[in-house]
Amino acid sequence: MRYVIIGGDAAGMSASSRLKRREPGAEVIVFEKTGDVSYSACGMPYNIADADKPIESLIVRSAEAFRNSQGIDLRTGHLVRKIDTEAHIVYGSVTSGEDFEAGYDRLLIATGASSILPDVAGTDLDGVFSLKTLEDSRKIKTSLEKNDVKTAVIIGMGYIALEMSEALSARGIEVTMIKKREQLLPWMLPELSDVVKNELIEKGVSLEPGLPLEGIEHSPNGLKVTAGGRAFEADLVLLAVGVKPESGLASDAGIELGASGAISIDRNMQTSAPDVFSAGDCADCLSVVSGKKIWLPLALTANRGGRLAADNMMGDRQSFNGIAGTAVFKVFDVEVAKTGLTLGEAAASGFEPVYKAVVAKSKAHLFEGAAPIHVSFIADRTSGRILGAQMVGKEGVARRINAAAVAIQARMTLSEFYECDLAYAPPFSPVWDPLLTAASLLLKKTDGKV
Amino acid sequence: MRYVIIGGDAAGMSASSRLKRREPGAEVIVFEKTGDVSYSACGMPYNIADADKPIESLIVRSAEAFRNSQGIDLRTGHLVRKIDTEAHIVYGSVTSGEDFEAGYDRLLIATGASSILPDVAGTDLDGVFSLKTLEDSRKIKTSLEKNDVKTAVIIGMGYIALEMSEALSARGIEVTMIKKREQLLPWMLPELSDVVKNELIEKGVSLEPGLPLEGIEHSPNGLKVTAGGRAFEADLVLLAVGVKPESGLASDAGIELGASGAISIDRNMQTSAPDVFSAGDCADCLSVVSGKKIWLPLALTANRGGRLAADNMMGDRQSFNGIAGTAVFKVFDVEVAKTGLTLGEAAASGFEPVYKAVVAKSKAHLFEGAAPIHVSFIADRTSGRILGAQMVGKEGVARRINAAAVAIQARMTLSEFYECDLAYAPPFSPVWDPLLTAASLLLKKTDGKV
Repeated sequence: MRYVIIGGDAAGMSASSRLKRREPGAEVIVFEKTGDVSYSACGMPYNIADADKPIESLIVRSAEAFRNSQGIDLRTGHLVRKIDTEAHIVYGSVTSGEDFEAGYDRLLIATGASSILPDVAGTDLDGVFSLKTLEDSRKIKTSLEKNDVKTAVIIGMGYIALEMSEALSARGIEVTMIKKREQLLPWMLPELSDVVKNELIEKGVSLEPGLPLEGIEHSPNGLKVTAGGRAFEADLVLLAVGVKPESGLASDAGIELGASGAISIDRNMQTSAPDVFSAGDCADCLSVVSGKKIWLPLALTANRGGRLAADNMMGDRQSFNGIAGTAVFKVFDVEVAKTGLTLGEAAASGFEPVYKAVVAKSKAHLFEGAAPIHVSFIADRTSGRILGAQMVGKEGVARRINAAAVAIQARMTLSEFYECDLAYAPPFSPVWDPLLTAASLLLKKTDGKV
Repeated sequence: MRYVIIGGDAAGMSASSRLKRREPGAEVIVFEKTGDVSYSACGMPYNIADADKPIESLIVRSAEAFRNSQGIDLRTGHLVRKIDTEAHIVYGSVTSGEDFEAGYDRLLIATGASSILPDVAGTDLDGVFSLKTLEDSRKIKTSLEKNDVKTAVIIGMGYIALEMSEALSARGIEVTMIKKREQLLPWMLPELSDVVKNELIEKGVSLEPGLPLEGIEHSPNGLKVTAGGRAFEADLVLLAVGVKPESGLASDAGIELGASGAISIDRNMQTSAPDVFSAGDCADCLSVVSGKKIWLPLALTANRGGRLAADNMMGDRQSFNGIAGTAVFKVFDVEVAKTGLTLGEAAASGFEPVYKAVVAKSKAHLFEGAAPIHVSFIADRTSGRILGAQMVGKEGVARRINAAAVAIQARMTLSEFYECDLAYAPPFSPVWDPLLTAASLLLKKTDGKV
């Protein structure tokens, strides 16, 4: 049996490792267009923040290790350009120029996502970067080493933009964040996004919302960013307006696309083409809350999807039943966490969402290091079912969100969650965990009992 | 309506506050035998550790605040000695000597738990303490202030003993821990209890297991503890061999006792006597895992029980459906957490428990501050149902256990838990949260799928 995998990052390498482990005799070929495989994309901002840390420390496992100790035929610098799903052949070209082709019995498309480039002039100038690949990180880090970067403009305010505002500040760079819409973090509950906003301001980041990017050009002092009619000088510009699924290759091959233009897959990770599977940031998935297809590029989803794709490529029937949509990140000293649907997603999915943001302490009252946590569940008013949760605070947020993620997976109502026996000890929590307090107070806004 | 409550700690004050809030016109009388109400018992070791912190900072709400702003008729120094359940009258005596009696429409027994005193000579000597009440804390703290305490012997190795080993060490005292049984932490999985043991040894605590206490006497240098035929000199002795439910008053009144000699209550917090309810450390409760009655004195259970008892005393039918049995504590730099049944309890409850202790990182590989976490689920071999979880590590343990606590409440299997979308970001977790890794590896020991 010959398995071909397009893309050597989280999903692709999870799949190829599992294929080789479970079927050592099989031929497993991975085509990766870049020279890098299996690196911690989520760790990139933290690496950039630290001038002394080599970029290579982000590499979890080298191409050689996959080749030698696992027997995976991993071909870096191989760009697949076309899939013939009828003939079961992929065509491509190598970095050096020559073409290649390879037949497959089962194919996995794990092409990931790529940065969205704003459609304005100057995004290709020297000193203008985006951050999606390890190569992007290398370029940014080299630029910080070689040039005297004093000011940076970040376009966008998603979590990469936020993490990079911290990373660049850590390097002593003055950061200005520009974004198109007025609302800073539209997916967050307003009481919670205010906490993030205040943290950014307190840490010296300039926020400029409501300014659509118009162009970037050279200026005598470096770069000039024009947005909403205003001009901003900067030594470095980071474009972080978002990512899109890399689904063009699949789409060109006649494979159906789904949510947000990602490759549509079923519970068994299979695309619309026979023997073709997909996993990771290029594919869509199910929301366990709404039961609908969503596109949410997350590292755990990619790893899990790759693993399950491998099982199904080998003929098992293993289902990926969906994700809650759990994400955490850090912005300076503030931890931000969410799981499930946002208020807007919940309404769009036909629920009648209610929420109640509460402020509680991360530890027992007066215990050293206790910090205020802003926390809210989002629930359906009539059924009381938990649809989502969001949390922000300087301490005790990130791991706490998992209790809500499990509750969502178990389709719990607020009343059921309120019955949970969460951990208490003064160094870690008030007697009533902030999540229990939030559940109890939101209950009053639902048709459930108090 | 007249509500009488015996005991002014967590359960008693939660109940009386709720009664007054929901029924402001009702008469709510609380009889508390000590002078203290509503203090953080769990915070006592941390307070003792800090010479500069007044003992009063443990008081959450003063007796005056309950009286004046909530209108609760709170009578401290009132010891109830007898309950006439037929006549609906309680009898007692005040600290000053005179007797009192009070009729009730509904009665709540919230007498808590008390320290078990080993049945040997010398437990009443000066310099010998136990730690259950605020008054106990006061005595220990005063003794540390007035005397030059250089060495301490702690009898027992439960969580109060462990927390006090840290507190006394923080005061510069050399601590020796003596316990009867050979096994240090018999309820813990052996791989995990070794971590706690090593931490204690590393922090300079002398461990002396397998030595039954024989007596305590004065010695020229202070106190002499004899245990297992050996003698230990100490300036201070702490008896921490465990606690027992304060159920004698109820038992004398003919009220049925249940698990471990605690007052037996139904889901509506009602005892076997009409109009008599019980909550907190003196009462038993249901395990959501086994469905059986257990006795597990926990602060959240007492607060929740008090609140639910109030609702039921007012005629509502609100059920307490049980607890998972979640507990966390800190021993020096190690966090210890458990939820659900222990291996022994699981076997005794008719399950066929399996476990697999794994070591994972608390944060992403190589991320600053990442610490090894030892974690294990305990599951039923045939059904794969999660029965318990235990975790030990220097970072990222305490709040993480809540995900397992919710899973237990939702009666999840390991496979179901493994599908959960837990949070990932390098500062907080590996891509696969340690709990997911533990679930995945234990799955292989069950009849479930991998």
